Amino acid sequence: MFRTFFLFAFLLSTTSHVSPIDFCIADLKVARTPAGYPCKPPSTVTVDDFVFSNYLPGKNNIFNFSFTLASVDNFPSLNGLGFSMARFDIEEGGVVPMHTHVDADEVIIMLQGNLTAGFISSDSNTAFVKTISEGNIIVLPKGLLHFALNVGKGKASANVIFSSVKPSVQLFDVALFGNNLDSAIVEKTTFLDHAQVQKLKGQFKGSD
Amino acid sequence: MFRTFFLFAFLLSTTSHVSPIDFCIADLKVARTPAGYPCKPPSTVTVDDFVFSNYLPGKNNIFNFSFTLASVDNFPSLNGLGFSMARFDIEEGGVVPMHTHVDADEVIIMLQGNLTAGFISSDSNTAFVKTISEGNIIVLPKGLLHFALNVGKGKASANVIFSSVKPSVQLFDVALFGNNLDSAIVEKTTFLDHAQVQKLKGQFKGSD
Amino acid sequence: MFRTFFLFAFLLSTTSHVSPIDFCIADLKVARTPAGYPCKPPSTVTVDDFVFSNYLPGKNNIFNFSFTLASVDNFPSLNGLGFSMARFDIEEGGVVPMHTHVDADEVIIMLQGNLTAGFISSDSNTAFVKTISEGNIIVLPKGLLHFALNVGKGKASANVIFSSVKPSVQLFDVALFGNNLDSAIVEKTTFLDHAQVQKLKGQFKGSD
Amino acid sequence: MFRTFFLFAFLLSTTSHVSPIDFCIADLKVARTPAGYPCKPPSTVTVDDFVFSNYLPGKNNIFNFSFTLASVDNFPSLNGLGFSMARFDIEEGGVVPMHTHVDADEVIIMLQGNLTAGFISSDSNTAFVKTISEGNIIVLPKGLLHFALNVGKGKASANVIFSSVKPSVQLFDVALFGNNLDSAIVEKTTFLDHAQVQKLKGQFKGSD
Amino acid sequence: MFRTFFLFAFLLSTTSHVSPIDFCIADLKVARTPAGYPCKPPSTVTVDDFVFSNYLPGKNNIFNFSFTLASVDNFPSLNGLGFSMARFDIEEGGVVPMHTHVDADEVIIMLQGNLTAGFISSDSNTAFVKTISEGNIIVLPKGLLHFALNVGKGKASANVIFSSVKPSVQLFDVALFGNNLDSAIVEKTTFLDHAQVQKLKGQFKGSD
Amino acid sequence: MFRTFFLFAFLLSTTSHVSPIDFCIADLKVARTPAGYPCKPPSTVTVDDFVFSNYLPGKNNIFNFSFTLASVDNFPSLNGLGFSMARFDIEEGGVVPMHTHVDADEVIIMLQGNLTAGFISSDSNTAFVKTISEGNIIVLPKGLLHFALNVGKGKASANVIFSSVKPSVQLFDVALFGNNLDSAIVEKTTFLDHAQVQKLKGQFKGSD
Repeated sequence: MFRTFFLFAFLLSTTSHVSPIDFCIADLKVARTPAGYPCKPPSTVTVDDFVFSNYLPGKNNIFNFSFTLASVDNFPSLNGLGFSMARFDIEEGGVVPMHTHVDADEVIIMLQGNLTAGFISSDSNTAFVKTISEGNIIVLPKGLLHFALNVGKGKASANVIFSSVKPSVQLFDVALFGNNLDSAIVEKTTFLDHAQVQKLKGQFKGSD
Repeated sequence: MFRTFFLFAFLLSTTSHVSPIDFCIADLKVARTPAGYPCKPPSTVTVDDFVFSNYLPGKNNIFNFSFTLASVDNFPSLNGLGFSMARFDIEEGGVVPMHTHVDADEVIIMLQGNLTAGFISSDSNTAFVKTISEGNIIVLPKGLLHFALNVGKGKASANVIFSSVKPSVQLFDVALFGNNLDSAIVEKTTFLDHAQVQKLKGQFKGSD
Repeated sequence: MFRTFFLFAFLLSTTSHVSPIDFCIADLKVARTPAGYPCKPPSTVTVDDFVFSNYLPGKNNIFNFSFTLASVDNFPSLNGLGFSMARFDIEEGGVVPMHTHVDADEVIIMLQGNLTAGFISSDSNTAFVKTISEGNIIVLPKGLLHFALNVGKGKASANVIFSSVKPSVQLFDVALFGNNLDSAIVEKTTFLDHAQVQKLKGQFKGSD
Repeated sequence: MFRTFFLFAFLLSTTSHVSPIDFCIADLKVARTPAGYPCKPPSTVTVDDFVFSNYLPGKNNIFNFSFTLASVDNFPSLNGLGFSMARFDIEEGGVVPMHTHVDADEVIIMLQGNLTAGFISSDSNTAFVKTISEGNIIVLPKGLLHFALNVGKGKASANVIFSSVKPSVQLFDVALFGNNLDSAIVEKTTFLDHAQVQKLKGQFKGSD
Repeated sequence: MFRTFFLFAFLLSTTSHVSPIDFCIADLKVARTPAGYPCKPPSTVTVDDFVFSNYLPGKNNIFNFSFTLASVDNFPSLNGLGFSMARFDIEEGGVVPMHTHVDADEVIIMLQGNLTAGFISSDSNTAFVKTISEGNIIVLPKGLLHFALNVGKGKASANVIFSSVKPSVQLFDVALFGNNLDSAIVEKTTFLDHAQVQKLKGQFKGSD
Repeated sequence: MFRTFFLFAFLLSTTSHVSPIDFCIADLKVARTPAGYPCKPPSTVTVDDFVFSNYLPGKNNIFNFSFTLASVDNFPSLNGLGFSMARFDIEEGGVVPMHTHVDADEVIIMLQGNLTAGFISSDSNTAFVKTISEGNIIVLPKGLLHFALNVGKGKASANVIFSSVKPSVQLFDVALFGNNLDSAIVEKTTFLDHAQVQKLKGQFKGSD
């Protein structure tokens, strides 16, 4: 049987040394393609490439929430898998402002506390809103405006899954008031009053 | 050669009567799947299934533009093709308000006039804005906030292409102020003032 | 502005009542296609279609673990999203036997306790094994043999994500010893001894 | 251990009775979608659904070849797999006329005899032609004009693989001369002489 | 609120500097993959990458038409979008000869004039032919032989959309008579007469 | 007409020299991406890139079978095509041990002899087993445990097709007993006896 195995291993090796198919750990030093990053050389892969180690509550921002994202950028074994995940913790009264994720569905798996989460459909322009707690999961469909509020007592925590190896985030206020987009254009295209736009441009540090 | 053709036709026919592969005209009376609609029976297909006949400037809305969309809903031969198109005409001074298309890139092919079009990237939060005219095409990437203004003299017209058989449209004002989404939630998640929200709820007929 | 909104809503409605694009909640009463289930009628969709409510630790099986799966079968809003998730709890000493998931990568997000998880690559026939705890995530690539053991003190819990709306599970012992696959075939194709096969056929209730 | 297996089987069964993922045998009585046919009910599936039994040389046509195609139409377990196959036998001197396969790459695996096969690239308008025999495989890229000739001694046979569950076939002569396409249009769009078009319309039974 | 924005921007920036997801402008100096070109560095992207500026009627060829194609080769922001477009102008009496596009559906959006366009299905070998004018769109399904004739008075113009970032074009006459494909092979595989083949080889400059 | 062709060729060439779309021969010296290898430069492509020349029965291994695989690794024109193929020959009494292919359906096209082939479904844990001979094809669905035995008289031969440009192979015995996976883990996760594991570790040269 010794020779059997030897021959068999040889057979296998002739078909496996060039292009491993089992996985494709991202080589982040090379430009990505529309289908993802090129794979790093398989000979350099160890078990640690498959393990992410800092998936813990982060430091709160001024909105009273923290968001620790494991995406292909810091967890390269997600390359080509089509999803990523984040640890989300929000203090009592905290708010996740209205935003969209380009090309990513979002799923919130509640761990503790109470969260009022919602999205607005584009087909029927309906607000779908629900307060969820431990044991609940909510789906927020791709690309639609959505938000979350910790309306309960104490902290709320969740694991959040995105159907993209790296979800883009577009926050309404940051996009409209946090850059050099001309105030006159903002006003004309949003019907917001001049004073309102100026106030938020001030708060979000957009230039005029 | 008569018999040749006869035999050959027979050979072909045995492989083609069950599932035509050339096209899949949507049968809109049946529920769609994530990959599109089921195909209508090939025996009922005529050349008119491949032709859309009302692709003309429509009636202007109050924003001074018209938008005639040929999507899988009214042009079923787009089923499975991955794109749709619209005839877009906008009067001098007209505004296409800030909006997103879920899961569809947009390309504007200018036919006449001048249009200032722009989008805001989510990665770098940069406003990409350009005034375009006949002979110009602009790409507005999938899911990002974008807008257009006819800032020139006279009417502007364009053919617009979407990378979806039916682009969803989410307008900022309609989504936030045109439904029953609670005003308090709108205020908390957008940082807009109470008075501003009430004013726009009134204009866009949202309930309080 | 009243009329504006009215006209605008009319424009939108003419393009949205036939085939909503925002989501496709599975209609489980109709046969699925290779791309997923047909969508249920949008008029019947409520926020509860987006919420899963029983995502809690289940009853332990004899291996001392419980596994509560939210897949397209019991959470139809996952239709077309490309992933599903499970709540996994395993007592001290519990074992998840050697198995594969057809066509699904698996990601384990640790919540508490210690788990030794591992998989065997097919390219290099290497065992990748790691003991993980809270704050760790491990990727187990698609289709490869893998396992987990609670080797720590006390219970271990995790959220598990699969890159499929419904992961198939093929357990080594159940597949080989829990059905009517002929014992002689099992022996010849696995090199296991006759007595070993008979013993496991007895334990897993396979016929001879 | 008896109870173990019982509990385990129960766990598995609760997640598997609605939508089997292992395979999707086409239900040919229902309209296909762009992603393939709906699946037939799993309870009706037997091993015979996975076996095709008439993959043998067929009756020669006037071109001196036979072609036995196993496509999703007569082998429903190919549904969703992305390929199909044909047994191809061609007598000495036989010709497979110039044709294309819409949306399918073709691979010829030679079994016996000699075949001169070729295709014309569209990028560089180059004829790629090679005479192949047993032990040779040739790739004919998707959508390009190609042909084959048995230029050797005796019969040639091959297994042919297509990257589609059902390859469409468009033969140059049948498409141009075997239907009611107006002769004047054929002449103008092909630069063929009137007499040549009339002659081939006669041979391929096209109307004038 | 100043610190709010600062913290928020910081949070965002940590997840966005490595791999922008918003778009993937082709880096044409690097080899493409089956899914498209690698992305150029986001720091070098400006609004001009999203704008194509020479989309105007070109110089007529001898067939009396011009065709200005915006594909990924000269408009790199189309990379990964799945479509491209062309400005098409054809003089009275002009002919677009019989041809196919490998792997690309074509949609003609008429701007002015009258065009008789048609394709031949492979399933039923039917000629689908229609004369279209301004306000009409026609779909020509992927891979099938098709043609167009300006049969009206005056020039005809159109925007043409392809479901590929770069449509290959295979013209019947150029493919068969414009290269070194052996005349004997052409005759045997097309059933065209020797004199006809020689004549067209002469016109299209093919070698014998 | 001379000038015609010249102008026409010029038109074509301006759209084709950068990124050929007809094919994408793998450049195996560059790292692959999740969608396949980058394409080698088109100017270096010849007809020999499309031809595989050593597709012949190989040398038998100790299990009495040979397996000659044409995958993207040694036949780079398969890049992006989604399938690969193997010549399979097995002597009387030969056994293909229990194994899986990650992410590849397998189709066996019998050429001669008799083969008992089977797979075990994961949904219903059913063994689907059939003895097949010349003129039969069997589908073995993606990722499931399967096996084959030459139970007939004399040699059996087949062409085997995989729905992957390079099928990974995971053999039960090699994966469990042919590497450094800890024996205690093997025993706990497979329920095999200690003595059985030690015996097979010896035969398959796994370390303890």
